[in-house]
Amino acid sequence: MKMAFIVFDGMTMMDLVGFYDAVTRLKQLIPNEDVSWDFCGIKAEVSDDRGMTFKVNQVKPVLAGYDLIYAPGGLATRQLRFDQNFIGWLQTAAEVKYKISVCTGALLLGAAGFLTGKRATTNRVAYDLLIPYCEEVVHARIVRDGNVITGGGVATSIDLGLYVVESFTDADTVQQIQTLMDYPYYKAGHLKSDYIL
Amino acid sequence: MKMAFIVFDGMTMMDLVGFYDAVTRLKQLIPNEDVSWDFCGIKAEVSDDRGMTFKVNQVKPVLAGYDLIYAPGGLATRQLRFDQNFIGWLQTAAEVKYKISVCTGALLLGAAGFLTGKRATTNRVAYDLLIPYCEEVVHARIVRDGNVITGGGVATSIDLGLYVVESFTDADTVQQIQTLMDYPYYKAGHLKSDYIL
Repeated sequence: MKMAFIVFDGMTMMDLVGFYDAVTRLKQLIPNEDVSWDFCGIKAEVSDDRGMTFKVNQVKPVLAGYDLIYAPGGLATRQLRFDQNFIGWLQTAAEVKYKISVCTGALLLGAAGFLTGKRATTNRVAYDLLIPYCEEVVHARIVRDGNVITGGGVATSIDLGLYVVESFTDADTVQQIQTLMDYPYYKAGHLKSDYIL
Repeated sequence: MKMAFIVFDGMTMMDLVGFYDAVTRLKQLIPNEDVSWDFCGIKAEVSDDRGMTFKVNQVKPVLAGYDLIYAPGGLATRQLRFDQNFIGWLQTAAEVKYKISVCTGALLLGAAGFLTGKRATTNRVAYDLLIPYCEEVVHARIVRDGNVITGGGVATSIDLGLYVVESFTDADTVQQIQTLMDYPYYKAGHLKSDYIL
């Protein structure tokens, strides 16, 4: 499982870090599991929407080499979805198996064409903006349509990370990770449904 | 409210970012409020425990100029609490009004002497390590003793951030921030108790 965390100026850190903390623990918990990740963007450093600057360790990689891409959101997505340089690069992920977003990261997946014919969700303040990009905007916390998984606003990223962990492993593993994270709120056992409210 | 986020190599990003997302929204929500923050450490860049490298925008500042310090945790705290260079620097926060930690960040506050005579908590795996530094280790999610507020493991950082927002404002404001964060789990109204389980 080779994961690409898509990062960009003006993103919301919490959108990234909840998911990142949950899924990267798969490596701690299952040491022989082949789990790796990169921070991928179109420049060497990015700054979030509140002043944290961090390093991109893969600048403009061809994303087709990954198994999973994860797009966080942030107010910057409103403009970024029209940036042909960024979206053209994101489209190199067309063949990537798992395409996941939280919050307005869904607008980026949408602008890249990855939500066409799919049900998806986003931050509730952006439901209308998502309409042109997908088959149906579902007002839910997590929506799965095949291997496209989208989540609601900001802190949904933790639940989404745990949902993805559960999808890849089982309820026992996700419970172990919740204990490590001291996060009692996620309830395992929703995988049979495509929506979590 | 001038806040110092204490950062160091080997810290856990989620310990920082849940709190950071919650408290920095005070500035978005109340634009005229004097809310500012810095990432403070003893070197120009730090890397978390899973490969994210980010910038420290105040290197070894005298911490006495802040109103609040926040210490995240991570496995690195086991050694860092014995690092006289780091702990000596942290002690420049002795006069800072609010001293807050999540997870094993409590070991750093403890090593700096800030928990002497106080009740405090930490990640449940580190309860024993915290005993020498404080009056009583309370097995709770959030513990307040005067202006020293400590939290449990990793993802407690969101609840802790919201608790601090509520302490500084009111239940309506914290509810607005929870809505922006899409985080339904924190329950306002606990401020009369010194513990939240």
